[in-house]
Amino acid sequence: MSTATYTVTGMTCGHCVSSVTEEVEQIAGVTGVDVDLPTGKVTVTSDAPLDDAQVKGAVEEAGYQLTS
Amino acid sequence: MSTATYTVTGMTCGHCVSSVTEEVEQIAGVTGVDVDLPTGKVTVTSDAPLDDAQVKGAVEEAGYQLTS
Repeated sequence: MSTATYTVTGMTCGHCVSSVTEEVEQIAGVTGVDVDLPTGKVTVTSDAPLDDAQVKGAVEEAGYQLTS
Repeated sequence: MSTATYTVTGMTCGHCVSSVTEEVEQIAGVTGVDVDLPTGKVTVTSDAPLDDAQVKGAVEEAGYQLTS
Protein backbone atom coordinates (compact mmCIF):
# COMPACT_ATOMS: atom_id res chain seq x y z
CA MET A 1 0.00 0.00 0.00
CA SER A 2 1.35 3.36 -1.08
CA THR A 3 0.12 6.93 -0.78
CA ALA A 4 1.31 9.90 -2.78
CA THR A 5 0.09 13.48 -2.91
CA TYR A 6 0.20 15.66 -5.99
CA THR A 7 -0.86 19.24 -6.64
CA VAL A 8 -3.10 19.92 -9.61
CA THR A 9 -3.84 23.38 -10.96
CA GLY A 10 -6.85 24.49 -12.95
CA MET A 11 -9.63 22.68 -11.13
CA THR A 12 -12.46 25.12 -10.44
CA CYS A 13 -15.52 23.05 -9.60
CA GLY A 14 -16.88 19.65 -8.71
CA HIS A 15 -16.93 18.61 -12.35
CA CYS A 16 -13.19 19.22 -12.53
CA VAL A 17 -12.69 17.10 -9.42
CA SER A 18 -14.73 14.30 -10.99
CA SER A 19 -12.74 14.45 -14.22
CA VAL A 20 -9.40 14.19 -12.44
CA THR A 21 -10.64 11.47 -10.10
CA GLU A 22 -11.97 9.37 -12.96
CA GLU A 23 -8.76 9.58 -14.96
CA VAL A 24 -6.43 8.84 -12.04
CA GLU A 25 -8.62 5.94 -10.88
CA GLN A 26 -7.98 4.27 -14.22
CA ILE A 27 -4.25 3.87 -13.50
CA ALA A 28 -3.44 0.23 -12.78
CA GLY A 29 -3.02 -0.42 -9.05
CA VAL A 30 -4.80 2.72 -7.87
CA THR A 31 -7.17 1.94 -5.03
CA GLY A 32 -8.28 5.43 -4.04
CA VAL A 33 -8.23 9.06 -5.16
CA ASP A 34 -9.05 12.00 -2.91
CA VAL A 35 -9.17 15.51 -4.32
CA ASP A 36 -9.28 18.69 -2.25
CA LEU A 37 -10.60 21.36 -4.60
CA PRO A 38 -9.51 24.51 -2.72
CA THR A 39 -5.87 23.42 -2.48
CA GLY A 40 -5.69 21.25 -5.59
CA LYS A 41 -4.15 18.45 -3.52
CA VAL A 42 -4.78 15.01 -4.99
CA THR A 43 -3.99 12.09 -2.72
CA VAL A 44 -3.63 8.78 -4.47
CA THR A 45 -3.48 5.43 -2.74
CA SER A 46 -2.28 2.40 -4.62
CA ASP A 47 -1.15 -1.18 -4.20
CA ALA A 48 2.41 -0.24 -5.07
CA PRO A 49 4.28 3.05 -5.59
CA LEU A 50 3.06 4.79 -8.74
CA ASP A 51 5.00 6.07 -11.69
CA ASP A 52 4.59 9.85 -11.38
CA ALA A 53 4.62 10.14 -15.15
CA GLN A 54 1.47 8.03 -15.30
CA VAL A 55 -0.25 10.28 -12.79
CA LYS A 56 0.88 13.33 -14.74
CA GLY A 57 -0.50 11.78 -17.91
CA ALA A 58 -3.85 11.04 -16.31
CA VAL A 59 -4.17 14.56 -14.92
CA GLU A 60 -3.31 16.05 -18.31
CA GLU A 61 -5.77 13.70 -20.00
CA ALA A 62 -8.44 15.19 -17.74
CA GLY A 63 -7.35 18.65 -18.91
CA TYR A 64 -5.34 19.88 -15.93
CA GLN A 65 -1.72 20.34 -14.92
CA LEU A 66 0.38 18.72 -12.25
CA THR A 67 2.68 21.10 -10.40
CA SER A 68 4.46 18.73 -8.05
CA MET B 1 -38.65 32.25 -33.13
CA SER B 2 -37.76 33.87 -29.84
CA THR B 3 -34.49 34.79 -28.14
CA ALA B 4 -33.97 35.53 -24.47
CA THR B 5 -30.84 36.18 -22.47
CA TYR B 6 -30.36 35.19 -18.85
CA THR B 7 -27.48 35.61 -16.43
CA VAL B 8 -26.28 32.56 -14.55
CA THR B 9 -23.90 32.69 -11.60
CA GLY B 10 -21.60 29.97 -10.36
CA MET B 11 -20.28 28.61 -13.65
CA THR B 12 -16.50 28.30 -13.45
CA CYS B 13 -15.43 26.01 -16.26
CA GLY B 14 -16.42 24.24 -19.43
CA HIS B 15 -18.06 21.43 -17.48
CA CYS B 16 -20.38 23.96 -15.88
CA VAL B 17 -21.23 25.37 -19.31
CA SER B 18 -22.03 21.86 -20.56
CA SER B 19 -24.26 21.13 -17.58
CA VAL B 20 -26.31 24.30 -18.02
CA THR B 21 -26.51 23.84 -21.79
CA GLU B 22 -27.73 20.27 -21.48
CA GLU B 23 -30.43 21.14 -18.95
CA VAL B 24 -31.74 24.17 -20.82
CA GLU B 25 -31.74 22.29 -24.14
CA GLN B 26 -34.21 19.86 -22.62
CA ILE B 27 -36.91 22.52 -22.28
CA ALA B 28 -39.65 21.97 -24.88
CA GLY B 29 -39.32 24.35 -27.82
CA VAL B 30 -35.69 25.30 -27.21
CA THR B 31 -33.71 25.28 -30.44
CA GLY B 32 -30.40 26.67 -29.24
CA VAL B 33 -28.40 27.53 -26.14
CA ASP B 34 -25.29 29.71 -26.12
CA VAL B 35 -23.33 30.21 -22.91
CA ASP B 36 -20.63 32.83 -22.41
CA LEU B 37 -18.62 31.61 -19.43
CA PRO B 38 -16.82 34.86 -18.45
CA THR B 39 -20.05 36.87 -18.23
CA GLY B 40 -22.45 34.07 -17.33
CA LYS B 41 -24.77 35.17 -20.13
CA VAL B 42 -26.96 32.37 -21.44
CA THR B 43 -28.77 33.10 -24.70
CA VAL B 44 -31.64 30.79 -25.44
CA THR B 45 -33.45 30.60 -28.76
CA SER B 46 -36.79 28.86 -28.99
CA ASP B 47 -39.78 28.34 -31.22
CA ALA B 48 -41.96 30.46 -28.95
CA PRO B 49 -41.28 32.70 -25.93
CA LEU B 50 -40.18 30.65 -22.94
CA ASP B 51 -41.56 30.54 -19.44
CA ASP B 52 -38.72 32.07 -17.39
CA ALA B 53 -39.63 29.79 -14.50
CA GLN B 54 -38.80 26.79 -16.67
CA VAL B 55 -35.41 28.24 -17.54
CA LYS B 56 -34.79 29.02 -13.87
CA GLY B 57 -35.70 25.44 -13.01
CA ALA B 58 -33.35 24.01 -15.61
CA VAL B 59 -30.47 26.19 -14.45
CA GLU B 60 -31.05 25.19 -10.85
CA GLU B 61 -31.30 21.55 -11.85
CA ALA B 62 -27.81 21.92 -13.30
CA GLY B 63 -26.68 23.33 -9.95
CA TYR B 64 -26.45 27.05 -10.72
CA GLN B 65 -28.46 30.20 -10.08
CA LEU B 66 -30.27 32.57 -12.39
CA THR B 67 -29.85 36.24 -11.54
CA SER B 68 -32.03 37.88 -14.17
